[in-house]
Amino acid sequence: MLPEKTLSWGVSRNCMRELSAYGVRRKQEIGADHVYDFALGNPSVLPPAIVNQSIIDIIREEGNTVHAYTTAAGIPSLRAKIADDLNARFDLGIGPDLLYISTGAAAALTASLHGVIIPGDEVICLAPFFTEYRVFSECAGAQVVVVPPAEDFSLNLDGIRAALTDRTKALIINSPNNPSGAVVSAEELNQLGDLLREQEAKTGSTIYLISDEPYREIVYDGFEYACPLNYYDDSIMCYSFSKALSVPGERIGYFAVNPKMNDAANVYASLVGAARGLGYVNPPALFQRVIERSLGSYSDVSEYKTNRDILCNGLRELGYEFVEPQGAFYLFMKALEPDALAFSERAKKYELLLPASNDFGCEGYVRISYCVARSTIENSMPAFKALMESYR
Amino acid sequence: MLPEKTLSWGVSRNCMRELSAYGVRRKQEIGADHVYDFALGNPSVLPPAIVNQSIIDIIREEGNTVHAYTTAAGIPSLRAKIADDLNARFDLGIGPDLLYISTGAAAALTASLHGVIIPGDEVICLAPFFTEYRVFSECAGAQVVVVPPAEDFSLNLDGIRAALTDRTKALIINSPNNPSGAVVSAEELNQLGDLLREQEAKTGSTIYLISDEPYREIVYDGFEYACPLNYYDDSIMCYSFSKALSVPGERIGYFAVNPKMNDAANVYASLVGAARGLGYVNPPALFQRVIERSLGSYSDVSEYKTNRDILCNGLRELGYEFVEPQGAFYLFMKALEPDALAFSERAKKYELLLPASNDFGCEGYVRISYCVARSTIENSMPAFKALMESYR
Repeated sequence: MLPEKTLSWGVSRNCMRELSAYGVRRKQEIGADHVYDFALGNPSVLPPAIVNQSIIDIIREEGNTVHAYTTAAGIPSLRAKIADDLNARFDLGIGPDLLYISTGAAAALTASLHGVIIPGDEVICLAPFFTEYRVFSECAGAQVVVVPPAEDFSLNLDGIRAALTDRTKALIINSPNNPSGAVVSAEELNQLGDLLREQEAKTGSTIYLISDEPYREIVYDGFEYACPLNYYDDSIMCYSFSKALSVPGERIGYFAVNPKMNDAANVYASLVGAARGLGYVNPPALFQRVIERSLGSYSDVSEYKTNRDILCNGLRELGYEFVEPQGAFYLFMKALEPDALAFSERAKKYELLLPASNDFGCEGYVRISYCVARSTIENSMPAFKALMESYR
Repeated sequence: MLPEKTLSWGVSRNCMRELSAYGVRRKQEIGADHVYDFALGNPSVLPPAIVNQSIIDIIREEGNTVHAYTTAAGIPSLRAKIADDLNARFDLGIGPDLLYISTGAAAALTASLHGVIIPGDEVICLAPFFTEYRVFSECAGAQVVVVPPAEDFSLNLDGIRAALTDRTKALIINSPNNPSGAVVSAEELNQLGDLLREQEAKTGSTIYLISDEPYREIVYDGFEYACPLNYYDDSIMCYSFSKALSVPGERIGYFAVNPKMNDAANVYASLVGAARGLGYVNPPALFQRVIERSLGSYSDVSEYKTNRDILCNGLRELGYEFVEPQGAFYLFMKALEPDALAFSERAKKYELLLPASNDFGCEGYVRISYCVARSTIENSMPAFKALMESYR
């Protein structure tokens, strides 16, 4: 007798990984240039030079001792440096005592969820949402409550109001959003804060706003990332250096508990205890030092803006419907039939790899990751055209 | 309302980390040379040169692309290489399809536990055991059943027999053992296998033998590591490169599901699904490549043998009681009073940092980590002498 859930998570990979694996095989068959692979969010822009330079320097200067255990929460000087950075940029007033360097944002999210969830609690996920929020929440023993999207992918406040119950323990927010590219405005965060505070007052139970923000440095002209921790006290920031530094394989990020939270020290302790229970001993040691040296440097994310513009213009001309992304590097496009899985399947015939929206919590869309080579976008347009024509 | 367990795991660090934190403060007060810090299992022998050379070579040869996501189970060529290594050394007959590169042995253990445990199942831990087995097991929803140690720290088969119930789902074995240094012989594994098979036949339920073996390359003259997977089919190997390559901070290891297990593919899938649910996206990318280049190289573990001999001779002369370690780099010494916590506290007065055995699942001992500078061992002897005299 094996646990049903872990078995199902292991048997069925998420749709992006599934399609990406198909892509690998297909590229071997017909050549990489003939497959338009938009499946994964693997940054196409390379890390800034300081990343590899730091690695070389650390090895030269510190030699063989850098690979030892660090404290579980991360090297104290790195935690202090990140706290300073957060205070300078977002005025959080946070100290290193509420900051924990994690093995990527995924570990920050699972520690946050396991650290606050008591089995039976509900976690609200706002569709469309990153597929793994469901897996992480259920693994922590929570029931997932899905709020359907607003037409323009703005924050669906009415939907959230309707989803709140006296068992709501957490709500996950993700701005800029994967997969829609929507950025939540300060005004929307204000309204969300009011709504959650009102519910807390009514039930007497804390609702934790968990902010997953690996894309916050990838925001386009005219839009601005607003920090959720400044609009609601019972909030936790989960961050990853994966996207802004293009190092997703190295698994390094952090969580930060809002110092304005009542009981912040206990919540922090519970998250740290959860990370311990899940087997996170310390974040990778060498990369902690790399981050310490490269904090404040970023990949050239303007490349994604150019990709976005070429993609949006091309698809718009062909008659596809979508809301132009405000940040991140995904475009969430309406499928040409109600069944997104069937649409994704048909797209494969034109060598277009477009994960269906079902795993993202809503139907009728596909996600296009435009963190790819420019040529992939440009060369894919005839395929998008043929796909469109096949529906006429 | 926070979950009680995660809060308690976060508030109380394990005894080693607690004492080590005290040691850091104490060294600042009186100087590092005057504190005899035996608290942590941080390898004192440096990694072999190939580790840092590989890092430099990888950065030079592969440049900026090495930091991308890898597949969740690890780079296929690395998995194949490790499978070949396991087959050559232990004749496991395993393929890469049952091997998963993990973020250290801790992640391999938590994935193994979450992948097989259904809440209410029992996990048997053999005292003395690594403190985190309890935390990892309880986090997966299991009840921990502790088998008391045999006087000489050999496998307590009668104790195991008495602990088996129809809810027993797993038994964790750790050879060489942390903290006792005991190595489980082939003969003992044979008897354990018989016992577990007998119980499986009686209840009709599978019992998974989870073998945590980060110390298997650190075994002293006259003793030999025997691979548990060759004595019992329903077994899972959890390994870390932390100790043999002295890279504990980099978090890289693997789990391997015994190919002789009935239903091995499903068990593997469930463990992979568990790792996904716990937030393990992929093991650190750069270090996967480092392991690929350095597999088969080891730190010079003969240093630990010399440390062990100096420590054992010194303590024996002073009249302390212990079983000489057969492997790993810990000595489990009888406290001079029944209350190990009080003994550990008194040792601090002599600047000796010796974690009490209570968290290891039994009373009356302290753990001495001799993966330290030779001079720490040599210079500590007068302190051990004074501690002994204080009990006369």
